[in-house]
Parts: sequence; structure tokens; C-alpha cells
Amino acid sequence: CPCPLPRGDCAFSRLLRRLLSARRSLELCLFAFSSPQLGRAVRLLHRRGVRVRVVTDAQYMALRGSQIGLLRHAGIQVRHDQENGFMHHKFAIVDKKMLITGSLNWTTQAIQNNRENILIVEDAEYVQPYLDEFERIWEEYNPVKYMFFPKK
Amino acid sequence: CPCPLPRGDCAFSRLLRRLLSARRSLELCLFAFSSPQLGRAVRLLHRRGVRVRVVTDAQYMALRGSQIGLLRHAGIQVRHDQENGFMHHKFAIVDKKMLITGSLNWTTQAIQNNRENILIVEDAEYVQPYLDEFERIWEEYNPVKYMFFPKK
Repeated sequence: CPCPLPRGDCAFSRLLRRLLSARRSLELCLFAFSSPQLGRAVRLLHRRGVRVRVVTDAQYMALRGSQIGLLRHAGIQVRHDQENGFMHHKFAIVDKKMLITGSLNWTTQAIQNNRENILIVEDAEYVQPYLDEFERIWEEYNPVKYMFFPKK
Repeated sequence: CPCPLPRGDCAFSRLLRRLLSARRSLELCLFAFSSPQLGRAVRLLHRRGVRVRVVTDAQYMALRGSQIGLLRHAGIQVRHDQENGFMHHKFAIVDKKMLITGSLNWTTQAIQNNRENILIVEDAEYVQPYLDEFERIWEEYNPVKYMFFPKK
């Protein structure tokens, strides 16, 4: 199902439905995450026992309305970059087999006001490189590697 | 070829090569376009006789380093939104059959410093909805519809 997202609830409902179909795992790789509805969906999956892992951009995770604090408070593992560049991905992987990717940041502004697209694919040849990228980032952003006092 | 874009020239070269493979048409639907290299590639295609059409976001097209003015100067048709929300897509369609889409804005910052992804697909089921969205936007942003003095 390819679904360039027109504005409105229909495409958003489809996105929510696909996310909520997760049974075992959910990887989120999101530049910005401030949509309360999507935040609730992710916390619900966590409570159902789905293994949720999130990587996000450091500069954006502290912005007003960010869902990242609520996710961590709920016990969900979140890792963030330590770079000047942006962790600009916006993709999710459901049960290691469904890739949800596109232009959409998970913000209310983007959902309600922007022209955006989301592509949902299940072909392994498309999903696998994103899974690999997630695992690379997950390790790279491991907190044991954070440098609080970078060398000059 | 799915290619989540790691930083570096290899993935960027692949992107350039795919773009330069255009023989008949190139549709660009880009939130931000300031990469000189990509700007040169698009102008080259235009000079070769490829029909290039561009839609972009009004708030971003006037930013420093934007390629939009150069494209228009070269005779390429560009249309932009008139909305408060962003025209946030970042996709290209080559010869109506290859879709290039992802998180990457066509800026030097994004190419050099960010974590980004690009997906390249040729399956008609994925390409067609993006072509439809392009044609919808192209008509919607037709300059005859611009309102210079919006009603209060």
C-alpha cells in the first residue's frame, strides 16, 4: 500500500492502524516527534508488550510538545545523536517487516497543515536497509558512548 | 535499488546518476533546494531537452543559496504554494517511471551533515500515487490561481 498522505484523517488513520498492528517490535527513527496521538499509540504498544526502540535528534527532542520525555517516562528506550548534523530520518519499522517512511515528521503541524507523503512497503529488499540503518544508529547512539566533556 | 543514504559521495553519486538518466521528463517536488551540484544537474537536463517541472515551498524558495532563482533564470518552470503549511515533499520522478523519495532535502547541509535516507523505486504501484500528487499540486499552484490580495 503506497499512500502519499493527503491532508486529513483518512491517511492518518491508516498510519495509526499500521502502527497499532505491531505485535512484537517497533523501531522508530524520527527527527521530530510531538504528535500526542502518535505518542499515545506508541505508549499503548509498549504497554501491550511490544518492544519499542526510538532514536531521535538531540536538538529537537527538548522542544515544547516533544513526546520523547513521555516515552522515556513510560519506560521506553530512547537514544539520541550527539552531532551537529540532524538525525533527519522519519521512518518506522513494524515487526521487522513493514517499513513506514516518507517526508512526515511526527508533529501535529505536519499532520494537519503540510503537504506530506508516507510510503508503506513490506518487500524485504526495501525494509532490510532501513533495519540495518536503525541498528547502526542504535549502536552509534548508545549512551555509553556519550561524551559529556568533549575533548577540545 | 533501495538506498538509505549514508553520508558521503557514494550515495550522492548514485542519486546524481539516477537523475541524469532522465531522457524525457523530470518532476521535482521539493521543500528546499539549495544544493549547487543538484541545481547544475537539473539545468543540464533542461538544456538536453528534458521537460523539467518543479514545485517548491514559498517560504523556503527565497532563502540564501536557493537554486530556484537559477532554475527559473534558465527557463525551467517552477510553481510554489501559497499556504501557511509547508509543501514538505522531497521527491523526484524520472521519465514518469522512477520515484526518488525520502527524508533528504536538496541542500548541502543535508547532503553533507545529516543522517538521511532515499528510496528509489520503479514499481508503478508506488510511482503512480506520487505522479498523481505531483499533477494535483502542479494544477493547484498554477500562477493564475495566486491571490496577491487575499480577501480578509
